[in-house]
Amino acid sequence: MLTKNRIIQIKSLSSKKGRLELGEFVAEGQKMLEEMINSNLEIVEVYYLSQVQDFVDLHCKGINIIKITANEMSRISQLKTPNSILVVVRLPKSDDVFECSDELVLALDSIQDPGNMGTIIRIADWYGIKKIYCTTNTVDLYSPKVVQASMGAINRVKVYYVDLAEFLSNTKMPVYGTFLEGENIYAKNLIHNGIIVMGNEGNGISKVIERYVNHKIFIPPYPSNIQSSESLNVAVATAICVSEFRRSEQYTK
Amino acid sequence: MLTKNRIIQIKSLSSKKGRLELGEFVAEGQKMLEEMINSNLEIVEVYYLSQVQDFVDLHCKGINIIKITANEMSRISQLKTPNSILVVVRLPKSDDVFECSDELVLALDSIQDPGNMGTIIRIADWYGIKKIYCTTNTVDLYSPKVVQASMGAINRVKVYYVDLAEFLSNTKMPVYGTFLEGENIYAKNLIHNGIIVMGNEGNGISKVIERYVNHKIFIPPYPSNIQSSESLNVAVATAICVSEFRRSEQYTK
Repeated sequence: MLTKNRIIQIKSLSSKKGRLELGEFVAEGQKMLEEMINSNLEIVEVYYLSQVQDFVDLHCKGINIIKITANEMSRISQLKTPNSILVVVRLPKSDDVFECSDELVLALDSIQDPGNMGTIIRIADWYGIKKIYCTTNTVDLYSPKVVQASMGAINRVKVYYVDLAEFLSNTKMPVYGTFLEGENIYAKNLIHNGIIVMGNEGNGISKVIERYVNHKIFIPPYPSNIQSSESLNVAVATAICVSEFRRSEQYTK
Repeated sequence: MLTKNRIIQIKSLSSKKGRLELGEFVAEGQKMLEEMINSNLEIVEVYYLSQVQDFVDLHCKGINIIKITANEMSRISQLKTPNSILVVVRLPKSDDVFECSDELVLALDSIQDPGNMGTIIRIADWYGIKKIYCTTNTVDLYSPKVVQASMGAINRVKVYYVDLAEFLSNTKMPVYGTFLEGENIYAKNLIHNGIIVMGNEGNGISKVIERYVNHKIFIPPYPSNIQSSESLNVAVATAICVSEFRRSEQYTK
């Protein structure tokens, strides 16, 4: 049964404040349910519509399941077009140990758009990046749109919110970042294990963080002198950078 | 002055039916206004808030400008957070001549998400791709979210809605497409000028179109045997493919 009070609580999970207060977050859809079951996360409860009864019976052994109406689903869903399943998940404790070495990692400087954030986590997952370090003002990992856009990758990639300047000041790894005046990424020899910093959607990498970037790189347009879009979307730029690092490690043409 | 009738008309531009009936589409924001002014498109009128009076005075010589209130703007804006400028633009006539040869072009098989569509057009613009061929069921170019996500690139990239199967059956250019069983894109010799087909978000490239793909390629995860996200977002995959084609033409490491 879905009480009025619980509806209010679940709706509050759309904000970071609400998530921290209740220690829960929301994921929606069949695929996300499967992802959460296969993760180390604790599922608090699964709300579902009768049309997916078989799917829920099959997958949710020992999980608290609650059948609700489409009308109730539309009241708790964070999506414009509600799905047939909504999972409430226990917010995991944040990790204190977040060192890295000898691996490729990402650092995000004030990414604001949840769709970009989710897509970046999905890219990291595809390319075997295990850790992402974010400034504390980067969009929250458990924001509903980030969870949905990541397509479950939040279960396999660790995301740390840190004092990024301090973190970078302490690392011995090479730090890469994209700048208009950077070196052509296609022509540069890339060190396979390093930190790639990606900047805010509007402002790029901040001055404070730029200080720690010791390899400035640039994704050149084609042909390089043409008038084109002023920039690439940050998730797209992340994909191209990470693709270049991984190909340089594994393949040459 | 913004009449009640005009409010209804502008709101109708959020649907393809409305756009075709009125022969107009909408773009929002200062950057989009600049892009439209610098394009060959005809601006019907510019609605703006008093706070951007100077900007509008500077840029809109000979253009029909109409100052409105924030309340009025929120009634005609297609955005959740309305901007200070809304431009109504004349829908251009569709081009009948759409042949291509000796160039890199994209073909889209049923892309549904307007954000993906806009991002793909922006990627094409960055990488000097002039033409995109779409199945007729691909999301409409002048849908407000496509216009916004493209960041003005719709003015520099031609998008054609065609019978894609027929188009591909008539081309002599190599046709590439991404498939799970395709060849590793990082290891394959790519012919610089060709057609890259990208498939629908959920279903990939359809059987009808697959028949015309003579080079199946694949973006490998890292390491290639790891369990990771099931797929990359289609705009991200487009970026990586196009980046590989352009790098293979211009750079070797």
